[in-house]
Amino acid sequence: MSVTAAKGFQAAGIAAGIKENGNPDLALVVNTGPRRAAAGVFTSNRVKAAPVLWSEQVLKSGQVSAVVLNSGGANACTGPKGFQDTHATAEKVAEVLGRGAIEVAVCSTGLIGVLLPMDKLLPGVETAAAQLSEHGGEKAAIAIKTTDTVHKTSVVTKDGWTVGGMAKGAGMLAPGLATMLVVLTTDADLDSETLDKALRAATKVTFDRVDSDGCMSTNDTVLLLASGASGIAPGYDEFAEAVREVCADLGRQLIGDAEGASKDIKVEVINAATEEDAVEVGRSIARNNLLKCAIHGEDPNWGRVLSAIGTTRAAFEPDQLNVAINGVWVCKNGSVGEDRELVDMRYREVHIVADLAAGAETATIWTNDLTADYVHENSAYSS
Amino acid sequence: MSVTAAKGFQAAGIAAGIKENGNPDLALVVNTGPRRAAAGVFTSNRVKAAPVLWSEQVLKSGQVSAVVLNSGGANACTGPKGFQDTHATAEKVAEVLGRGAIEVAVCSTGLIGVLLPMDKLLPGVETAAAQLSEHGGEKAAIAIKTTDTVHKTSVVTKDGWTVGGMAKGAGMLAPGLATMLVVLTTDADLDSETLDKALRAATKVTFDRVDSDGCMSTNDTVLLLASGASGIAPGYDEFAEAVREVCADLGRQLIGDAEGASKDIKVEVINAATEEDAVEVGRSIARNNLLKCAIHGEDPNWGRVLSAIGTTRAAFEPDQLNVAINGVWVCKNGSVGEDRELVDMRYREVHIVADLAAGAETATIWTNDLTADYVHENSAYSS
Repeated sequence: MSVTAAKGFQAAGIAAGIKENGNPDLALVVNTGPRRAAAGVFTSNRVKAAPVLWSEQVLKSGQVSAVVLNSGGANACTGPKGFQDTHATAEKVAEVLGRGAIEVAVCSTGLIGVLLPMDKLLPGVETAAAQLSEHGGEKAAIAIKTTDTVHKTSVVTKDGWTVGGMAKGAGMLAPGLATMLVVLTTDADLDSETLDKALRAATKVTFDRVDSDGCMSTNDTVLLLASGASGIAPGYDEFAEAVREVCADLGRQLIGDAEGASKDIKVEVINAATEEDAVEVGRSIARNNLLKCAIHGEDPNWGRVLSAIGTTRAAFEPDQLNVAINGVWVCKNGSVGEDRELVDMRYREVHIVADLAAGAETATIWTNDLTADYVHENSAYSS
Repeated sequence: MSVTAAKGFQAAGIAAGIKENGNPDLALVVNTGPRRAAAGVFTSNRVKAAPVLWSEQVLKSGQVSAVVLNSGGANACTGPKGFQDTHATAEKVAEVLGRGAIEVAVCSTGLIGVLLPMDKLLPGVETAAAQLSEHGGEKAAIAIKTTDTVHKTSVVTKDGWTVGGMAKGAGMLAPGLATMLVVLTTDADLDSETLDKALRAATKVTFDRVDSDGCMSTNDTVLLLASGASGIAPGYDEFAEAVREVCADLGRQLIGDAEGASKDIKVEVINAATEEDAVEVGRSIARNNLLKCAIHGEDPNWGRVLSAIGTTRAAFEPDQLNVAINGVWVCKNGSVGEDRELVDMRYREVHIVADLAAGAETATIWTNDLTADYVHENSAYSS
C-alpha cells in the first residue's frame, strides 16, 4: 500500500525512458491535503547530489505538495547544469499540478556523474501526473528501484490514522544515511515541527543503524509528508512510535535485499557505558570486511569481532569482553568461551551480541555479509 | 638477504610442527653484538595479543638480544594461559642462548583465539637455535608466512653499513599497523633512542599508510635491532632515510601480495590543507568497498572517489575537487572531466590522484582492489 495507504495522497510510477532497459524509472507522490506539512532528513555526505541540495531548501518551509523521484541517474557531481535540471524538474511538476516549485521535493538515484536525459524526464512528469491515483503507491515504489530485487513498502495503521511508505536501496548503505530514497506519508493531522522531531528520532535508530557496506551515498533522502486527511492528531509518543515502526521495517527490508548478501547480520552491543560507545562498537563490527567474509563462510569467528572492538575508543577492558553468536557465548572474558562447534550458522539471519561489560547502554546495527556476488555486482555495475 | 644482511646477526627458520601442514613456522633472529640496541612499534588495536603485551615490556629497556617468531597461531584472545605461553617461550630462548628473558621479543601470527601447541613450540626453539647462521635470514623470512604467497625481504646498503629486514602480512592490513610482523636489523652503531626516532618516522609514512582491507590486527609488530657490528655511526638523516626505504619496499611488497588482490592501488592526495587531511581522505578512499570493486572491474569510477571524500572532515569545497585515474583527469571541479574512456586500466598498478584544492600538503596510501578471491580466502580461512 506504500505511500497511498494514508488518506490524502496520490501516486504514480511510470517508465519515462531514463533507464535504457525500459523499466519504470519515474515516480510522483502528491499530497492532496488539507495539510501539506513535511519533514526531511538528508545524507551527511558533504558531496551532495543536486536534488539533495534542492530538496534541503524545499524542506526549510516545512511544506511539501509533491515529491518527484527518478531512478536511472543520481544527478550527483553534475555541476551547475545538474542543479538547473533538478530545478527544471520541480518547475515542471509545479506547472502540471498548479503549485509552486518551492513545494516540490526532488529525489534521484542511479549513476553518479551523468546528466539526466531531460528530454525524457520532463515529458515523463506529464505522463506520471496523468496517472496519479490513490492506488498508485505500489507502482511508485517499483519505479524507484535501481539494483533492488524487490520493491519495499510498509504500513502501520492505528486508530483512524496511518503511516505508510516506500524505500529503495541495496548498495552503498551506510549511516547518515544509506543509499536510500524513502518517502513516508501519514494522514495524521500534525505540523511540520512534530513531523521533524518524530522523523529524526526514528531515522537515528533505524536507517542510521543500517550499514550494508560502509559506503555513504550522495543522494540519501528520507521524507515524511502529512496530509491531515484523517482529521486526527495523535499524541507525539504514539505517532513517533508508528514512524519508527515503519522506518525499522523498511530498514530491515533494505538489509534483506543488500547487494549480493547471503546473510543478514544483527549486531547487538550491550552493557556499553554510553549509547555512543554502543553505536561506535556496532559500526566497527558491522564494517569489518574479514568478519563479514567469515559470516559468509558460516564461520563463527569471534576473534574478528574482538579485533574490530579493539579499534574503537569505547570504554571496555579487553579481558572482560564477551561475544555470543547465535546464542552461543563463544568468547568469555576476552578469551575462548563455549565450543564454537555449537553455533548453528545455517540460517540467513545471524545474531552477534557484543557485551562490553562497561555499563547499561545498548544499540543494534544491521549489516550483511561480504560475498563474491557483492564484488561481482559492484565491479560490473557503474554507479 | 633479510635480517642477516647486516653484520652481527644470525637467524634460522624451521618447521616446529605448529602448522599442521608441516610448513616452516618458527623463526629465530639473534643479535650477536657488540651492541644490542632496539626499538619497536606495535599495533594500536586495544585488543592486543599476548606476545605484543610481552614485547612492549621488553622494548622499554631499549635492549633486545633475540626475537622469536611463530606462524600458525596468533596467541591472541587466549587469556592468562596465552601470556604464560609467551613468557615460557621467551624463557626458553633465553635459556638456550644464555641471555635474560627480558631481552627476548616474541611475535606470533595466525589464528586468533587458539592456544599455541607449546609441546611443539619449545622443542622447536632448541632446533632453531642449533641452526642459527649468518645466512639464515631467508629461512627466517619463509617461516613467518601465513597466507603470504611469497616471503618478503629488503636490504639497503650504504657506505659500510646496512639496513635489512623481513616482513609477513597479506590480509588484515590496516593502519596502526597492518597485520604484519616485521624485523629490521642494522649493523650501524646507534643507540635505542635514535633507532626509535627513525623507526617511528619511517612507519608513519610507510606501514601506517598501507591499508589493504581496513581491518586492524591484534598482533602487528615492527622491530628494529642494531648490532653496531659495522663500527660506523651514520648521521641521523641518512640512517632514517635508509630505514624508510626498507620499510617502504616491504610495505609495497605487502600490498603486492594482499589476499586475493588483482590491482595495487596508489591513492595520492594532493593540495590538502594539512597532512592529516590528506591522510584522512586517502584512507577514506582506500577503504571504500564500492570503489575497490570498481577498480577490480577496471572501471575508473570517480563518482565513488568523490563519495568517499565527502565522508571526511577534511577542508575542501565539493565543486573544486579534481580526480585523476591513471593520469586522466576524469573529474574536474566536482563534475565530469576528461573522457573516462581514455583511462587505461589494464595494468596491475592503478594510480588515483585526489586534488582537494585546499592547500599544499600531500599523502599517499596504498591499498588494493576487493575481489571474489578475497571473499573466498577469508570465508574459508579462519584467522
